[in-house]
Amino acid sequence: MPNLIVATSNPGKILEIQPYLASTLPDWQLQLKPKELEIEETGSTFVENACLKAIQVAAALGEWAIADDSGLCIEALGGAPSIYSARYAETPQACIERVLHELKGVSNRQAHFTCALAVARPDGSIALQTEGICPGEILEAPSGAGGFGYDPIFYLPDYHSSFAVMSVALKNQISHRGRAFQQLLPELVKLLGKRSP
Amino acid sequence: MPNLIVATSNPGKILEIQPYLASTLPDWQLQLKPKELEIEETGSTFVENACLKAIQVAAALGEWAIADDSGLCIEALGGAPSIYSARYAETPQACIERVLHELKGVSNRQAHFTCALAVARPDGSIALQTEGICPGEILEAPSGAGGFGYDPIFYLPDYHSSFAVMSVALKNQISHRGRAFQQLLPELVKLLGKRSP
Repeated sequence: MPNLIVATSNPGKILEIQPYLASTLPDWQLQLKPKELEIEETGSTFVENACLKAIQVAAALGEWAIADDSGLCIEALGGAPSIYSARYAETPQACIERVLHELKGVSNRQAHFTCALAVARPDGSIALQTEGICPGEILEAPSGAGGFGYDPIFYLPDYHSSFAVMSVALKNQISHRGRAFQQLLPELVKLLGKRSP
Repeated sequence: MPNLIVATSNPGKILEIQPYLASTLPDWQLQLKPKELEIEETGSTFVENACLKAIQVAAALGEWAIADDSGLCIEALGGAPSIYSARYAETPQACIERVLHELKGVSNRQAHFTCALAVARPDGSIALQTEGICPGEILEAPSGAGGFGYDPIFYLPDYHSSFAVMSVALKNQISHRGRAFQQLLPELVKLLGKRSP
């Protein structure tokens, strides 16, 4: 069984990514990036960072690798925290508090999540890349215990709920990551489906 | 879709646990324990700790929860690191180095992994618990980049490889966690299968 290395240590991302890949590439073995393999995220865009991660992991292990780089872009903050979403404060809760503080009294709550995906070949070259976007609004206070990161304050008007309230199945249908995977998977099957035993 | 909360933040455990539950309880929604929900692991056995985790998460969220507590028991170290496996040193790599150091020159390399699983009801009472064991030997040096924790130094004589070399699919068939799930899943289906919509 060939390996596909998932270049993330984020438990929330693994929970969302695994079902897509397991159902689409059943003959491929998902493996985590080894913890001690440090990756540099020095890009200035989501796509660049996703590619950097996939390339470094693939090249270091000599295996196919898939990477995700994603974040929240808030209109009233000039697009911040963007690629710095996970580093906007020490903990996910502190990140949420910082955003809520910065948006105190601000009426424009428009925002979107972006997810870039990249797949690299065992030689460290990029085979596929894609990006998905999901528009929404920033709540005044967190709502819900599911999801991860900024999910509790990201509100989907069409669904009358935050990402942290809805099921992972529904979130995966409509989210930035879901949309990125919907574009990626047909290409990934063309690319890897025929390589399986 | 009802929720089943997975009471772990360990990416390696999530990668292994998700396929069992997704295929056995397709109508249930797996969700991660919220990061900010701190859990006390004050038990003195794997089973006790698994139950403590499941109970606390289920009670805090009012949802069904499943928890895993697992670790490595080394004969020549009197069973250590046991329930302290994840806390034996600062990082997984440092944990491995400590074990290798303590076993330097020791000829008895016998060890086993234990995995306890517990399922708690939304009211915080225990519904199911089980334990699986996998015997093996501690290598003189790490081998392989897969798996997590002590996998690179845990050798399966029958398979001529460490847990970190074999595929997750094979590891899941023979591992302590695999054996615990093989016992748990039929009971879990009896318990939760009929509750799905």
